[in-house]
Amino acid sequence: MKVVIVGLGVIGGSFAMALKDAGYKEVYGIDNNQETLLKAEKLSLIRRGYTDGNEVLKEADLIIISIYPKLVKNFIRNNIDNLKDGAVITDATGIKKLFINDIVDILPSNVDFVFGHPMAGREKKGIDFASSDVFKGANYIITPTSKNKEENLKLIEELAYEIGFKRVKRINPEFHDEMIGFTSQLPHALAVALINSDIEGRDTGNFIGDSYRDLTRIANINEDLWSELFLGNKENLLKSIESFENELDKIKNAIKDDNKEYLKELFIKSTKRREKL
Amino acid sequence: MKVVIVGLGVIGGSFAMALKDAGYKEVYGIDNNQETLLKAEKLSLIRRGYTDGNEVLKEADLIIISIYPKLVKNFIRNNIDNLKDGAVITDATGIKKLFINDIVDILPSNVDFVFGHPMAGREKKGIDFASSDVFKGANYIITPTSKNKEENLKLIEELAYEIGFKRVKRINPEFHDEMIGFTSQLPHALAVALINSDIEGRDTGNFIGDSYRDLTRIANINEDLWSELFLGNKENLLKSIESFENELDKIKNAIKDDNKEYLKELFIKSTKRREKL
Repeated sequence: MKVVIVGLGVIGGSFAMALKDAGYKEVYGIDNNQETLLKAEKLSLIRRGYTDGNEVLKEADLIIISIYPKLVKNFIRNNIDNLKDGAVITDATGIKKLFINDIVDILPSNVDFVFGHPMAGREKKGIDFASSDVFKGANYIITPTSKNKEENLKLIEELAYEIGFKRVKRINPEFHDEMIGFTSQLPHALAVALINSDIEGRDTGNFIGDSYRDLTRIANINEDLWSELFLGNKENLLKSIESFENELDKIKNAIKDDNKEYLKELFIKSTKRREKL
Repeated sequence: MKVVIVGLGVIGGSFAMALKDAGYKEVYGIDNNQETLLKAEKLSLIRRGYTDGNEVLKEADLIIISIYPKLVKNFIRNNIDNLKDGAVITDATGIKKLFINDIVDILPSNVDFVFGHPMAGREKKGIDFASSDVFKGANYIITPTSKNKEENLKLIEELAYEIGFKRVKRINPEFHDEMIGFTSQLPHALAVALINSDIEGRDTGNFIGDSYRDLTRIANINEDLWSELFLGNKENLLKSIESFENELDKIKNAIKDDNKEYLKELFIKSTKRREKL
């Protein structure tokens, strides 16, 4: 199977590494950055790199697209004539409903796009931070469409397990976006708000423990990607923020009222939930 | 130097391990749980364990108190006659202003209490989760009082470095509580509110990545300890929560208004702050 990875950033690069680890030999890369392609070639992550799809896409059995969501549509449009009959395409986009609606409109009928979301990432961008470890033990979500062939859904599912993912779930795009608004986007919003609420100029670093470190790790955030993801899932994210605010209010009021028993109740609830995870 | 650790829970136990690693031989323990004492003896973390201070405290040069904050005053009161002239006492309490005021009132003049806060912990409690690793590279805060002798402040400072802490800072109790309200208590409040805001009954665990895992780790929280810490520092914590809410509102409004440029600004600010940490 000939695999082409489109976009050798932190996620595309991690796919290349994980495929190499899993024994895939025919992996090629497309990226608009020559330096990135050279790095990937030197590390033997890809056989060869290309700056466009005119040559290499024509023979690709599987295309893994890991570029900014808004660039995907154009990439496919520009390469409609380069796609091989029966080729399978997959992606790594963190939002699905709007994204899928956008793509299926222009997708030629001779290829099958299996929409996927590897729930793994790094706060840093670029191939230098790629690592196959990031996928180990992680969750993978597939959001099937009515056009997907079962064999191609299985192909991506098996590939995900092969490269280290622990759980692969099929859900619909609406549920995906609802869950991701809560499990991924809300935490990013909280991390950003937490570190931004620090008073400017304090030497905070001298007075932190693991809790602050953990809760702000993802405040180091790719602004282009995440502003797009937030706005592409705004209703779900706003709903998650509001539910969160209600819970924070409960804590705040318990503190104001010196209501130790209620605070404890909230802590016991959160402990139970975390232990169940 | 004869050291007595009072309370062999996750923090006291970690102190015992770290002291052992650093070559301290004369370390004893006091705990009201016999099983804990036996475990600590078996692991050679302490020479011998006691359920009260009547015997062992009389010869203690250094007493490390790591029990619930509200129990400290009574412990000292009950052991006033057991304290050796010139003994140094230190603690591991996460709040300082109210706590110190409470203790200095009853402290006999023949001992020196150096108030300390090792900024390291585990979400689990008990000696089974103790580990000297938890101190490695961590921050240690000392909040000197006017009664502390410089030589005793230095003793604790050096001990902290010896057992693995990376930075030891001296600050006043007010600033300690203000910082800790922000860097430690606020993150705990956010983690609890985040996991408690999940919709009951969803199989959320299948749809999480590292961000949710990281942000909810400390939602597994000791309710007795943390309700006490929260209420013992309520003004500072409430102020931190309010500043956080203001920042979260900025994100929320940017999403509502589809204001991508402002969202990016907030993300760029948080990224810069996180990288500086």
